[in-house]
Amino acid sequence: MERRKFLTGAAVGTAGAALAAPAVAQDRITWRMVTTWPKNFPGLGVGAQRLADRITAATDGQLTVQVYSAGEMVPPLQALDAVIDGSAEMSHGAAYYWQNKSVGLSFFTGVPFGMTSRELTAWVRFMGGQEAWDEIYDQFGVQGFLSGDTGTQAGGWFRNEIKSLDDVQGLRFRTPGLGGQVWSRLGASVTNMAAGEIFQALQNNTLDAAEFVGPYNDLALGFYQVAKHYYTSSFVEPGLATELVVDKAKYQALPANLQAIVRDVCQAEYDEVASDMYANDPRALKTLVNEHGVQTYASFPDDLLEAAGTAAEEILTEIREGGDALTKKTAESYIAALNILRTRTEGTDMGFIEARRKYFSLS
Amino acid sequence: MERRKFLTGAAVGTAGAALAAPAVAQDRITWRMVTTWPKNFPGLGVGAQRLADRITAATDGQLTVQVYSAGEMVPPLQALDAVIDGSAEMSHGAAYYWQNKSVGLSFFTGVPFGMTSRELTAWVRFMGGQEAWDEIYDQFGVQGFLSGDTGTQAGGWFRNEIKSLDDVQGLRFRTPGLGGQVWSRLGASVTNMAAGEIFQALQNNTLDAAEFVGPYNDLALGFYQVAKHYYTSSFVEPGLATELVVDKAKYQALPANLQAIVRDVCQAEYDEVASDMYANDPRALKTLVNEHGVQTYASFPDDLLEAAGTAAEEILTEIREGGDALTKKTAESYIAALNILRTRTEGTDMGFIEARRKYFSLS
Repeated sequence: MERRKFLTGAAVGTAGAALAAPAVAQDRITWRMVTTWPKNFPGLGVGAQRLADRITAATDGQLTVQVYSAGEMVPPLQALDAVIDGSAEMSHGAAYYWQNKSVGLSFFTGVPFGMTSRELTAWVRFMGGQEAWDEIYDQFGVQGFLSGDTGTQAGGWFRNEIKSLDDVQGLRFRTPGLGGQVWSRLGASVTNMAAGEIFQALQNNTLDAAEFVGPYNDLALGFYQVAKHYYTSSFVEPGLATELVVDKAKYQALPANLQAIVRDVCQAEYDEVASDMYANDPRALKTLVNEHGVQTYASFPDDLLEAAGTAAEEILTEIREGGDALTKKTAESYIAALNILRTRTEGTDMGFIEARRKYFSLS
Repeated sequence: MERRKFLTGAAVGTAGAALAAPAVAQDRITWRMVTTWPKNFPGLGVGAQRLADRITAATDGQLTVQVYSAGEMVPPLQALDAVIDGSAEMSHGAAYYWQNKSVGLSFFTGVPFGMTSRELTAWVRFMGGQEAWDEIYDQFGVQGFLSGDTGTQAGGWFRNEIKSLDDVQGLRFRTPGLGGQVWSRLGASVTNMAAGEIFQALQNNTLDAAEFVGPYNDLALGFYQVAKHYYTSSFVEPGLATELVVDKAKYQALPANLQAIVRDVCQAEYDEVASDMYANDPRALKTLVNEHGVQTYASFPDDLLEAAGTAAEEILTEIREGGDALTKKTAESYIAALNILRTRTEGTDMGFIEARRKYFSLS
């Protein structure tokens, strides 16, 4: 997932046609939700629409949420600003899109070698994460709620197998964000481009490799036709969360039960989106392997992973030490929580998964 | 977690005092939720109360849910019957408590070597699990919703280290349910007893080992004082889900928005309980190790795991082939989904967790 892929089409906003002032009649309120996703984008875009519909249904229309896909009202990367300036009441996207406002926001989406989706909710809900997030967003008069998660993403599509770190030198790789920074430190020639441009760049041989999300989203884009080597486990995107952002003053002015419903539905949708991705990624992968002859790899070579771990440590340390005070505070809370949480993931979850992998099979 | 641990105290019902007919006034309804948990039982009992409070809050009291802990209205293992006979509208517990009604219900809580918590939600919400569950519960006029999950539980407390399968022969082990059946086939002398009796049995040397839930719940029971060897990863309880059961006719007679709120809050609570356990298990484990000198093991010996995998395959096959038609249908749906889902867990999640374990550390 990344910041710029939806810029294409952003200029084609049909803002004038769709806009209306928030309606208040018979105690009914209509709120506008701008999103960073194209309409019907599997998993995430579908989740934004479903979240809106669930709020409308649970409030019996008392709070009706109207969705504007990327570009319909504002360009995708202006969604947060639309809430801040009052032209929308809600935005649906990912916190790390707004790193220009505070680098610390990365931690509420996902960072290289960072938290899995379940570790993230444990931190946000029970270990101070939400409070750190609130402090950052308070500066802008908004409030964020987790609203979905992709789970661990795929590592990417490669024209040739990656046999060692040497094969990364000069590799022309489309991979954005902090993950791109890690690959860049490994020697890759990292570029970014919109999702719709990747296929052609692979075909024209101006790219050697590309990563997007995971099988569910990647299948539709056809990368398998050009790059047959698919690394199914990313080390830079261990789980990427989406957010619902609301105008905080307007949110707090809602009746308490409507506030509760917005919170509850966001949390329900976190589970729904994660389950959707979890169910549909392996189905799509099966299609990629069985029908399109894709060669899969469950992990990258060890020397590459080792160098990547070191690069991620450096990058996260630079963020912690080089940002503003709230970024430092957020980074420290995140790292302390991760160090506790990973003991459960590694000492409990992994033992089970490994035992099942080795010793259980039933058809 | 298990079926009989809350039977103690079950006879001390204070039913007469607390009961009242469902009140309907000014469009306000009060529903009674009976639970299988003691009041304030960490994670699960707390979750039942919080779920009730969240429904009450989100409906602004239109649907007020009043909680009766285990034994307050009915004994814990009569909670489902209370909904069926109409003396309560909701019950909160675990589907596998009701295996006497249908063995297939086990699959909606958890089975040995079965689904993790995220695999379970993927199956229930996107791969036919809810539909299979509905078919079973339709026979009793009730409807179930997932409402929480412990995540992968701990393997248990042992007086002595388990060095190989040989050490299991004759081991007097308190472990209930299908997990107990697996251990029994490995040669253990399996017994069951209420949670409150375990500590003394370990101290009296009438037990060699016991398993309960995980560090968060186990710490309070003091097992570490007698049995210092703690296996932190269970192969028989990879994730145990709780359920909210409602009277289906009364549920369907609710206004659509109240039905939506019950569904949404259950799903939000699934995430909340799982996050609570995930945050607090490793904190409790830290206390057990640092303050109580507990020796931990991330997995059991390989020969034991191999035999356990075979035993679980046999038991699940017996359930699939030996039960009623709906149990067979449910088992087949579950196994087919598990075989797809585990490819994501093993091919994507594990690769990341292993890479992070080996190559990333930041303090």
